[in-house]
Amino acid sequence: MSKKSILISDPTLRDGNHAVRHQLTRENFVAYCKAAEAAGVPIVEVGHGNGLGASSLLVGECSVSDAEILALARANLQKSRLGLHVIPGFCTIKQDLSRAVEAGVDVFRIAAHCTEADITDRHIGYIRKAGREAFGVLMMSHMASAAVLLEEAKKMESYGAEAIIIMDSAGAYFPDDVTERISTLVDGLAIPVGFHGHNNLGMAVINSVAAVNAGASIIDATIRGFGAGAGNTQLEVLVAVFERLGFETGIDLYKILDAADIAEREFNPVAANISPLSIVSGLAGVFSGFAKPVAKAAQDYQVDARDIFFGLGKRNAVAGQESLIIEVARDLAQQRLAQKV
Amino acid sequence: MSKKSILISDPTLRDGNHAVRHQLTRENFVAYCKAAEAAGVPIVEVGHGNGLGASSLLVGECSVSDAEILALARANLQKSRLGLHVIPGFCTIKQDLSRAVEAGVDVFRIAAHCTEADITDRHIGYIRKAGREAFGVLMMSHMASAAVLLEEAKKMESYGAEAIIIMDSAGAYFPDDVTERISTLVDGLAIPVGFHGHNNLGMAVINSVAAVNAGASIIDATIRGFGAGAGNTQLEVLVAVFERLGFETGIDLYKILDAADIAEREFNPVAANISPLSIVSGLAGVFSGFAKPVAKAAQDYQVDARDIFFGLGKRNAVAGQESLIIEVARDLAQQRLAQKV
Repeated sequence: MSKKSILISDPTLRDGNHAVRHQLTRENFVAYCKAAEAAGVPIVEVGHGNGLGASSLLVGECSVSDAEILALARANLQKSRLGLHVIPGFCTIKQDLSRAVEAGVDVFRIAAHCTEADITDRHIGYIRKAGREAFGVLMMSHMASAAVLLEEAKKMESYGAEAIIIMDSAGAYFPDDVTERISTLVDGLAIPVGFHGHNNLGMAVINSVAAVNAGASIIDATIRGFGAGAGNTQLEVLVAVFERLGFETGIDLYKILDAADIAEREFNPVAANISPLSIVSGLAGVFSGFAKPVAKAAQDYQVDARDIFFGLGKRNAVAGQESLIIEVARDLAQQRLAQKV
Repeated sequence: MSKKSILISDPTLRDGNHAVRHQLTRENFVAYCKAAEAAGVPIVEVGHGNGLGASSLLVGECSVSDAEILALARANLQKSRLGLHVIPGFCTIKQDLSRAVEAGVDVFRIAAHCTEADITDRHIGYIRKAGREAFGVLMMSHMASAAVLLEEAKKMESYGAEAIIIMDSAGAYFPDDVTERISTLVDGLAIPVGFHGHNNLGMAVINSVAAVNAGASIIDATIRGFGAGAGNTQLEVLVAVFERLGFETGIDLYKILDAADIAEREFNPVAANISPLSIVSGLAGVFSGFAKPVAKAAQDYQVDARDIFFGLGKRNAVAGQESLIIEVARDLAQQRLAQKV
């Protein structure tokens, strides 16, 4: 029996930007592209944490422009394909997408909140017309049932998406959750299905294994787990685990371990770890990128940051709804006051 | 249905000593005992990384004596029971064990390599006679089959052990391995069974879940994953995961998260992470405590540390056989020389 082949897409230089408030440097981009290329990583994703065109005062400014990041990456990736995270809300077709096509991006991962596939229609269409590859990405996918995810994924497929990735943006999944959703998608779609994990509950690696066992053929993972909150699925661990389980990634084990050493020297902070607040955000099912504004609101209103996270979870808060943080914090402060009276 | 109850045993102040070359301070012991007590941790294990009486020039000297560690822990644990890791090779009954009984240790975890239960006979007997609790611990348990582990565990049971813990000292297990071994032990023994995981392949949390699902009722875990090599099962993550899965630990979630914050301030280095060498040691099934001498031998003989680990794995090296490291390194150097000729 031939080994099952898994396509690894590596967002170290994109999701990792979340871990350093989008301050990855030119040197970081170059050093890691070279290391990933040497190890045989199939897709290297780069850019602002929130993707193309997202650099802004509100979301956080990148220290390097999209244009320069793409030029640096393109110059240092030959066998590895160049990938890009694209959220239609942040980027325009005329300005951002067309330039990224010109810059030679190979794979465009067009992303939407898990129930809002509709917004990806024109972007996916544009990329396919430009002759580049377009994946559809459903973010915060734990907030939708398997049936709803399939419905949304089918929309993306109908727009021309050549693969569907579901993201566990909050690190909230357990392996059984992944198995259920991935099998539903694999059964219901004609295109490949992928999984993007976060490690808030220590499940990123096993969730990725569950995804593959359920039929997924694309897995996202970052070196040292470098990424938002508790970090992503740790790439070099996954390569080792897949090698043991008999899945083929095409990535050289020793060279990806070398890349981890290079990342250890290049990036600051280095290895991802599971902090108390990221555990709570995983349990609550809230994007852990909220940690900083939540901590601030906790201090401002003298309430427990963990209570804020659980409150946000109850309200199904998603990225972009940062104002809910203040609302929840204020409610908690008022409740406390009421209890004192 | 009532929730299944899991007994958590926390070796932060013992396995964590490996992470700092046995240099935990008096202040560390006191601060963490207080935090664990406040959170309701049932058993707090303390001491040198290799257990009672192990502090030595060869293995590494503790900065605090066994006697003082036990006195500090005893003074700061009331509801939490005081536990001790005991390897008969390192500690004598007359000197070490008797003093530990006098110092008020509640739970003695008498440990042996997974195929050498015989050496625990007299120690377990002594502890039972002294009216204290004795667990039998099988280290490096991935090196024995389920059937062999059961045989060894039965010996310990016959000596008087009141529970059996199997350790994944190398972090080499996948969930299915754990399921197979734990169910065999649960079916074949009359006493409770437990699991002690390490995170070399990112599996510590899910392996602990697999253990509980297979019938284990005792789980070891450390705060921040603080421990040898890639670290242990991360306690505060496990508490969150067990809470979600409906297992009862008696540990307060918020207070164990507070303990993680305290540990973050107290210990240095802080959170465990999965380094390239610890991945290789997990894949090779070798105790990751070997990492430092392996790195040194790699430099001395100008060979790849990873090749040494895989070579040690092939020779089934276990702790105490550090001289094998030199042997493997020398062989690799000779092979390289031979290839050049």
